[in-house]
Amino acid sequence: MLSKTQSKYIRSLALQKFREEKQSYLAEGEKIVAEWLQSDEKIEYIVGLEDWITLQAPLIRKHPEALLIKVTEDELKQISTLQQPNKALLVVKRQPQKPLIHINDWCLALDGIRDPGNMGTILRIADWFGISYVFCSPDCVDALSPKVVQAAMGAHLRVTVYETDLPALIKSSSLPAYAAVLGGDNVYQLNAPEKGIIIIGNEAKGISKEIIDLAKYNITIPRLGGAESLNAGVSAGILCALLLGK
Amino acid sequence: MLSKTQSKYIRSLALQKFREEKQSYLAEGEKIVAEWLQSDEKIEYIVGLEDWITLQAPLIRKHPEALLIKVTEDELKQISTLQQPNKALLVVKRQPQKPLIHINDWCLALDGIRDPGNMGTILRIADWFGISYVFCSPDCVDALSPKVVQAAMGAHLRVTVYETDLPALIKSSSLPAYAAVLGGDNVYQLNAPEKGIIIIGNEAKGISKEIIDLAKYNITIPRLGGAESLNAGVSAGILCALLLGK
Repeated sequence: MLSKTQSKYIRSLALQKFREEKQSYLAEGEKIVAEWLQSDEKIEYIVGLEDWITLQAPLIRKHPEALLIKVTEDELKQISTLQQPNKALLVVKRQPQKPLIHINDWCLALDGIRDPGNMGTILRIADWFGISYVFCSPDCVDALSPKVVQAAMGAHLRVTVYETDLPALIKSSSLPAYAAVLGGDNVYQLNAPEKGIIIIGNEAKGISKEIIDLAKYNITIPRLGGAESLNAGVSAGILCALLLGK
Repeated sequence: MLSKTQSKYIRSLALQKFREEKQSYLAEGEKIVAEWLQSDEKIEYIVGLEDWITLQAPLIRKHPEALLIKVTEDELKQISTLQQPNKALLVVKRQPQKPLIHINDWCLALDGIRDPGNMGTILRIADWFGISYVFCSPDCVDALSPKVVQAAMGAHLRVTVYETDLPALIKSSSLPAYAAVLGGDNVYQLNAPEKGIIIIGNEAKGISKEIIDLAKYNITIPRLGGAESLNAGVSAGILCALLLGK
């Protein structure tokens, strides 16, 4: 049974303002909830239907710190951000941002990615290719928004997302930056590319001029047909596949 | 001014049943509408705000066959499928499906792609890589649904989408089929791959066993990290980039 205060609190986490104020976010859907319960994340609330709670009892017991709340389908619907509410929902405490260590392997940097689906897809790509760090400019969509968490399919548990000033990051790093642009050098012609920072730009405006100028390489996936551009998530996937896939 | 009958007709085209019955579909949003007006597609209605109509008069004149309807923002909102209705909307006549010619170049085949965003993204990828034909199994989402048209960004004007029986297509084609699976052969180890049919499977179930068995190659993008899978659109983009990009 969900109290009014709990319901109001959980619903507020759909908004970035409250996620930041409360330092918490939502994880929803059976598969995602199960992944989070298997992890060492600090769970604040475990909210679920009765049959789901029975079934997942062993996983739930792994989190004695969490408040377990049994709800009806109607109650879950009221607090869910999904169009088709699932069986369970978690409120998770944000991890404090760790101090940035020296990066010495492939990483991604996102300059103004606004679409939550793209952000989630890119985190999932990072997770697939074993990329540990994704750097986000301050104008990126919040990586802990419910839609991003949905689309990332658990990537948050393995990929560290840093909000940071990208020009400063590039200037301070010993790794070269690869800016994904239209009309740059053919990415297929880079021979044995050195490890670096792959930069993906905003869906409409691309990468800011300052960052393009700072990047050692301006690279392009050559267009063979008529489309004006590729989706940001797809571009990120292709560049990871071409630069570091094997 | 939009009549009730026109409004009802346009709104009905949000549904596949009526798109098939009327052999028409919607194209919305300023950029997409401009692309369609520049094409030779047969436009039935051009619906727009007054200032948009004034601005686009030269393009609109290219389509004397179309009925031009001036609407208010409120009227456009009522018929639009977009959350943020734009300035214009078209009703376009479907082209009759051309008889299938002999295919002799790279093409894509989609086995049960259900998500309109994925379908649109894949058509946009085909358009980028100059792939002329995308074959869809009958259980794919309708490629002319408004969300697909939005996500494909004009690909429909350059890429031909065929609904067809995929096993029959593979059996009758002289090209090899490449099935994208988990746990197949490393796609990076295909040396100078021969032109063929790249098959992408359903978001949850993948490719049906019958089709996997018919495919000459079962290929995989090797996973270097922890994600369980890649998004269908991203996989399609990576495979196109690795197999035919240059």
